[in-house]
Amino acid sequence: MAKEKKLQPNLPLGFTDRSGKELSIKDKLIGIIKQNFERFGFSQLETPSFEISENIGKFLPDEGRPMSGVFGFQEENNNWMSLRYDLTAPLARYVSKNSNEISNPFKRYQIGTVWRNEKPGPGRFREFTQIDADIVGSKNNLADAEMCSLISDTLIKCGLEKKDFKINLSNRKLIQGLINQLKINDDEQKLIVIRAIDKLDRIGVNGVEQLLKKGRKDQSGDFTKGANLSDSQTSEIINFLNLKNISEVKNILTNELAVEGIDELQKILEGVKYGGYESQLNFNPTVVRGLEYYTGAIFEANLTFKVKNLKGKEVEFGSIGGGGRYDNLVSRFNKIDLPATGISLGLDRLIFALTQLEKVDYQNKEPVIICILDNKYLPKYYEILKKLRDKNINSEIYLGDASLKSQLKYADKRNSPAVVLCGDNEFKENKITIKNLKKGKIESEKLQSREDWKQSENIQVTFPKENLINEVKKII
Amino acid sequence: MAKEKKLQPNLPLGFTDRSGKELSIKDKLIGIIKQNFERFGFSQLETPSFEISENIGKFLPDEGRPMSGVFGFQEENNNWMSLRYDLTAPLARYVSKNSNEISNPFKRYQIGTVWRNEKPGPGRFREFTQIDADIVGSKNNLADAEMCSLISDTLIKCGLEKKDFKINLSNRKLIQGLINQLKINDDEQKLIVIRAIDKLDRIGVNGVEQLLKKGRKDQSGDFTKGANLSDSQTSEIINFLNLKNISEVKNILTNELAVEGIDELQKILEGVKYGGYESQLNFNPTVVRGLEYYTGAIFEANLTFKVKNLKGKEVEFGSIGGGGRYDNLVSRFNKIDLPATGISLGLDRLIFALTQLEKVDYQNKEPVIICILDNKYLPKYYEILKKLRDKNINSEIYLGDASLKSQLKYADKRNSPAVVLCGDNEFKENKITIKNLKKGKIESEKLQSREDWKQSENIQVTFPKENLINEVKKII
Repeated sequence: MAKEKKLQPNLPLGFTDRSGKELSIKDKLIGIIKQNFERFGFSQLETPSFEISENIGKFLPDEGRPMSGVFGFQEENNNWMSLRYDLTAPLARYVSKNSNEISNPFKRYQIGTVWRNEKPGPGRFREFTQIDADIVGSKNNLADAEMCSLISDTLIKCGLEKKDFKINLSNRKLIQGLINQLKINDDEQKLIVIRAIDKLDRIGVNGVEQLLKKGRKDQSGDFTKGANLSDSQTSEIINFLNLKNISEVKNILTNELAVEGIDELQKILEGVKYGGYESQLNFNPTVVRGLEYYTGAIFEANLTFKVKNLKGKEVEFGSIGGGGRYDNLVSRFNKIDLPATGISLGLDRLIFALTQLEKVDYQNKEPVIICILDNKYLPKYYEILKKLRDKNINSEIYLGDASLKSQLKYADKRNSPAVVLCGDNEFKENKITIKNLKKGKIESEKLQSREDWKQSENIQVTFPKENLINEVKKII
Repeated sequence: MAKEKKLQPNLPLGFTDRSGKELSIKDKLIGIIKQNFERFGFSQLETPSFEISENIGKFLPDEGRPMSGVFGFQEENNNWMSLRYDLTAPLARYVSKNSNEISNPFKRYQIGTVWRNEKPGPGRFREFTQIDADIVGSKNNLADAEMCSLISDTLIKCGLEKKDFKINLSNRKLIQGLINQLKINDDEQKLIVIRAIDKLDRIGVNGVEQLLKKGRKDQSGDFTKGANLSDSQTSEIINFLNLKNISEVKNILTNELAVEGIDELQKILEGVKYGGYESQLNFNPTVVRGLEYYTGAIFEANLTFKVKNLKGKEVEFGSIGGGGRYDNLVSRFNKIDLPATGISLGLDRLIFALTQLEKVDYQNKEPVIICILDNKYLPKYYEILKKLRDKNINSEIYLGDASLKSQLKYADKRNSPAVVLCGDNEFKENKITIKNLKKGKIESEKLQSREDWKQSENIQVTFPKENLINEVKKII
């Protein structure tokens, strides 16, 4: 290898390593979620990380410029391909490509990484794991209800209680009906209105009001152009956002599209009762969802408890996922329209929430370490190792080159449950000694007197070698 | 959504969708492999898909041009980052970044996608799943032996038998010792020699001979420059490649480096005995491994049975994974050297091999479909659904809008095990009818006479509704 300057072992901004407890919880949750999605009749699909750029389009919120927000890569033949920014656009491509082979409706789930080429910030990554389930080919509102039941049931299977979350429900047809009623006809204006409402959580009612009118200057001084609505148009929209239930909406919105939207919402609320999750649903007109492709019902799962942010301040956790109906996405490829509805959960946020609630039991899978007291006993150490592994006990022989003290330090650093310590005495008498590191840690924290110390000596036990498995199982 | 031209739902070349049986087997194997790696004392790590380009270097085989073979993206600040092409280079970066926190030795496994920006071909993808396990910080040859035992044990846990694979073992120090002995001093020449040997499987002994001398023109007419060795140098290398065992090597190679390599190989063969996998190991001087960073022992797991290629021709399956010792990779970052050894398995190739051997039992997880005979019974259908799901039986109510015939077609296309068919009669009498689609498929294949047909009628059964779970469990 040629000599080169020493490199800095950093990561690009917005990317992170994961290990230990976090990864163990991630694996566990993915297992639970897969099983539950299959229980609801969804089959797994895996699409590749790259798609032809124009096929997945640019439906990200807040993106005026083409392809911004997306990692694009130019091929040798000059075509562009992009890393997927969500799992829905690839699904539309898949359904269209395989329309003759797949069932109708087509129910699939997918768990995978998505990439966003956005400005990274604390806790804000440029790749994350999304969990999606969709039903393509059904315009039945019971399908939307099923998606709401699926989110609820899955969050509960993951460890949340009913009181920990709510699903806020609305319908794009309401806000679009209102926009029509207010005679806002310009496409750009319409988009600005929806994006403004989507930002309500972050910028507050005043911020939304500014964006509906002339525009808004944020804390950094950046100016975002507004929709240039009149005072009366603006106040009608703000008024709509304050509505508390569907009957109030009925009084205000009378045009055809909105009435259709109201009817759909009522059917969904009815359908969710069948699943037993009606207590989780909550009509909320401020839900609009940022992604541009939604056409009907929209829903957003919100955690109801507060969490501590990086500065230690208690804040609302906010959305953990959501979804809605998108009836035109597949028609970008095919002549036929395939109505669709789906949900998406953010796995990293779910892990964070469950960890804060201390609602995931984490199982330590670190190995039992067999220490090397003398190299001449290697064959005997391997004999012990074989017995442990044959019983599926995670275990290893220490393979570094170090003193017993360093071996114990190694076991400690790895958070091993136990070490096997066998030397002349043990092998002479056909015995085995193990030290309980789990107990050792607890004991050493509360050791007060010499009396305690004596009692704690049972953290190390010696026993006839045929008791190995029993003794180790007592510990792990 | 603005009108636009209809898109073609294709994928970029070298990428593919996966679903159904293939994905189910993939999930199952990943579960088995994770459990086994943990049994051997390895802990899971997940590094991100992107790394700073210069940190992961360019150790790919056959790559003269900088960064070719890798997907690189230029950041706004002009720095380059790359999608990882393997899991080893990111490990070196991780170990260096976290050297104060991690244990020494550090044992980790990682399962993840890697990307190669190579020319795609049939069955040759530009992204695939790699499975790696490494021990960093131990120069002990028992660690190399442990890696060989780990590959063997894992392949067996996945369903292979001992006769299905061999691990070919060699040591870079042998060929490097020979190169020194032959007084080949030019770095470029050395690299060409190693790469030529790595191609032996594909280009044969004659091809290697050409590459050791002037160079080789392949079938497409492309010319690859050779190492320009003399006839005697070339024949000594070819002679070395034909050696069958370590004692023959001892007679030929006498320089210090090679002797060191031979000694290491003997220790590894001794260590593998402890694990009980000595029958799987096979000394083979033609193994050199393409990646540039190996410095010591190298091993390659090869399947011993033939498989059918895409043209239906029987061919050797070849390598399913391998690895070796790389003692200098971490020192690219740190002043200290951290010796390391590791393996890498190609998951997609493993799936292909096991499928060819029909050695994976695939469990159908498609749902029981509850058909809608009349919408007025929806609450009753949901009641049945709840009973099934409460017992963790994958199930759903048909949510499309179609006739009973289409509903049955849907269930068939999904490969569902059974459909629930309940209408007026059933609900009047508190009964449930289910149709066994599994049996139905088998029966309809062998139906010969009217007598058979009558017998086959038991594919549909009606029973009191309290027997639901029992009856469904009989089928699935």
